Amino acid sequence: MNVNGSHYRTIWFDKNRHAVNIIDQTKLPHQFEIVSLTSAEQMAQAIKTMQVRGAPLIGAAAAYGFYLGLRNNPDNVSLKNIYSQLLATRPTAVNLRWALDRVQRLVENLPLLQRADAALTEANAIADEDVTINQAIGQHGFALIKAIWLQKQRPVNILTHCNAGWLATVDWGTALSGVYAAHNTGIPVHVWVDETRPRNQGAHLTTWELAAHGIPHTLIVDNVGGLLMQRDEVDICLVGTDRTTARGDVCNKVGTYLKALAAHDNQIPFYVAAPSPSIDWRITDMKNIPIEERDTDEVILVAGIDGDGKNTQVSIVPKTTNCKNYAFDITPSRYITGIISERGVCSASADGLSQLFPEHYPQFVT
Amino acid sequence: MNVNGSHYRTIWFDKNRHAVNIIDQTKLPHQFEIVSLTSAEQMAQAIKTMQVRGAPLIGAAAAYGFYLGLRNNPDNVSLKNIYSQLLATRPTAVNLRWALDRVQRLVENLPLLQRADAALTEANAIADEDVTINQAIGQHGFALIKAIWLQKQRPVNILTHCNAGWLATVDWGTALSGVYAAHNTGIPVHVWVDETRPRNQGAHLTTWELAAHGIPHTLIVDNVGGLLMQRDEVDICLVGTDRTTARGDVCNKVGTYLKALAAHDNQIPFYVAAPSPSIDWRITDMKNIPIEERDTDEVILVAGIDGDGKNTQVSIVPKTTNCKNYAFDITPSRYITGIISERGVCSASADGLSQLFPEHYPQFVT
Repeated sequence: MNVNGSHYRTIWFDKNRHAVNIIDQTKLPHQFEIVSLTSAEQMAQAIKTMQVRGAPLIGAAAAYGFYLGLRNNPDNVSLKNIYSQLLATRPTAVNLRWALDRVQRLVENLPLLQRADAALTEANAIADEDVTINQAIGQHGFALIKAIWLQKQRPVNILTHCNAGWLATVDWGTALSGVYAAHNTGIPVHVWVDETRPRNQGAHLTTWELAAHGIPHTLIVDNVGGLLMQRDEVDICLVGTDRTTARGDVCNKVGTYLKALAAHDNQIPFYVAAPSPSIDWRITDMKNIPIEERDTDEVILVAGIDGDGKNTQVSIVPKTTNCKNYAFDITPSRYITGIISERGVCSASADGLSQLFPEHYPQFVT
Repeated sequence: MNVNGSHYRTIWFDKNRHAVNIIDQTKLPHQFEIVSLTSAEQMAQAIKTMQVRGAPLIGAAAAYGFYLGLRNNPDNVSLKNIYSQLLATRPTAVNLRWALDRVQRLVENLPLLQRADAALTEANAIADEDVTINQAIGQHGFALIKAIWLQKQRPVNILTHCNAGWLATVDWGTALSGVYAAHNTGIPVHVWVDETRPRNQGAHLTTWELAAHGIPHTLIVDNVGGLLMQRDEVDICLVGTDRTTARGDVCNKVGTYLKALAAHDNQIPFYVAAPSPSIDWRITDMKNIPIEERDTDEVILVAGIDGDGKNTQVSIVPKTTNCKNYAFDITPSRYITGIISERGVCSASADGLSQLFPEHYPQFVT
């Protein structure tokens, strides 16, 4: 997408420096900074500290990290270490394991000297595929938004949680891809952006990327969405996913479940944009999805700029305050109107998903 | 309740200075400061800026403000102005109008020179009654907590939203009154405290008052409660109310509705502590409750202490970001297990409330 008139992806290989460049998302919205990474350790750190985040981007980042690690040392011990180190960064997003498995399967039987190049080719392929997938998801999301617009003949009000825009992916985004597509074809849209405590990805990232593209939007605290739905100020909810089960239950940024409940209570369609790499075909019971617990400093310290325009943090409570910081929750499929995948929209169920992805449901194949 | 070993109310008449003293709640949890107010204007400002807040405390504060105004000028024009000025401070909490009406009815037919004294006596009476009401609510809340403890034989996990503790009232609190009563009799309790964006009353006030009394608690962001309920980590939800309709629908701090939905979805009891002055007997349709919209700076600026220990604010997004800041939402009665009033616990319905308060339901009286 465009930043100040130039096209950017969130991650790309820099052949001049043999480095992988990322947009440092911890600096947004106040600074736009590009960071060059040259080792698997640096990439692992970037994923852990959320300089890169968002399930699809985490997948691509892990693949590039694998390349960086193999470039520094391609032997079998190193390969195993790189894999474990990157896998340990974030437990919930399934794209991480998916991408690492894909690179590992490809390189493990190659001669040592070919491994890094093969990993880079695969990482580039994963990144390109992500873009293609998200463009397809955007077309299906666009159709949903267009239908509402045709019916209501006024700007379509979309509520989103966290950031499932282009910053969460390599490009285009998942939930927001359809919003960009609608806006680009002249359909008037307005996005309610949940700030998404504690990391404020909505406030910091979603508002920033929507503003960069001129899409009307309004920032709200996470508590407000229910009231807006009660007042008929939301036409559709669109969110992303970090891991979706084979039965269509959705693990996403904590708080998603509460918005799905409110949408259900007010008969508002609630859609999840799920690229197939974020679907965990092996998990049928949502209780088996690991829920990441992060540092409680994320709750206690809030980042922003002070009166002098300097980046700073304030502590909202004494450091001794006991906190819990769960990063995800699970929205049961019964509250999800549909899943938007690259192959189309289906019901949030094994039945629905198996129609679009029969290869993952051998028991359904006739 | 106790602060550093001394007993305090949140508001009291200071006869030496002929002033009304309040605890400045905008300074907590970092500073404990008492402010003396000497005019209705100052009280109106204190209510508007939330130096005092919480529906029951707003009622008492308005009554004391009426006294301060009449003391400065008791004539009829002044009386009318004081009433309007104080009423305009916050639109949602019904206690405000209730207290102002009560003082006005009392003083309007009195000679000018008797008005201020009468208003003070009435304000003191309102404050004392609030304490009595909250103690009674505490006993009924205590019984609910005790029943869970007897059944589960382990600490009772209570989730609360915003601050409905003693800081929201003159003393004891509403939702938290039962928690204090349970703790004081040796029943082990643990409170999940929603931080309650944007003003962070949970983070700033509820954690502070629970810590002062040694009650185990854990601060969470507003998004987390649903996950906790999915994981069976919440035994009961206890919240306050700013205005409850005669049919038992509850207007409370924005986000309450989302927690009620999650409690309902997970079969967790959800109780609202409602002193009778916070029940609006005239409103039967919840859509007629005015929802306060506050300054968007509350969303953009987050208050805390910086690295040097100084009180400061950070801007989480550029000041140009479009925001909406609705302060309340409405929880329909069907999601409320029961209402805890000073006269006992009843179902959230006209039927339930009329059993406890028949004088407000003439049509129900046989």
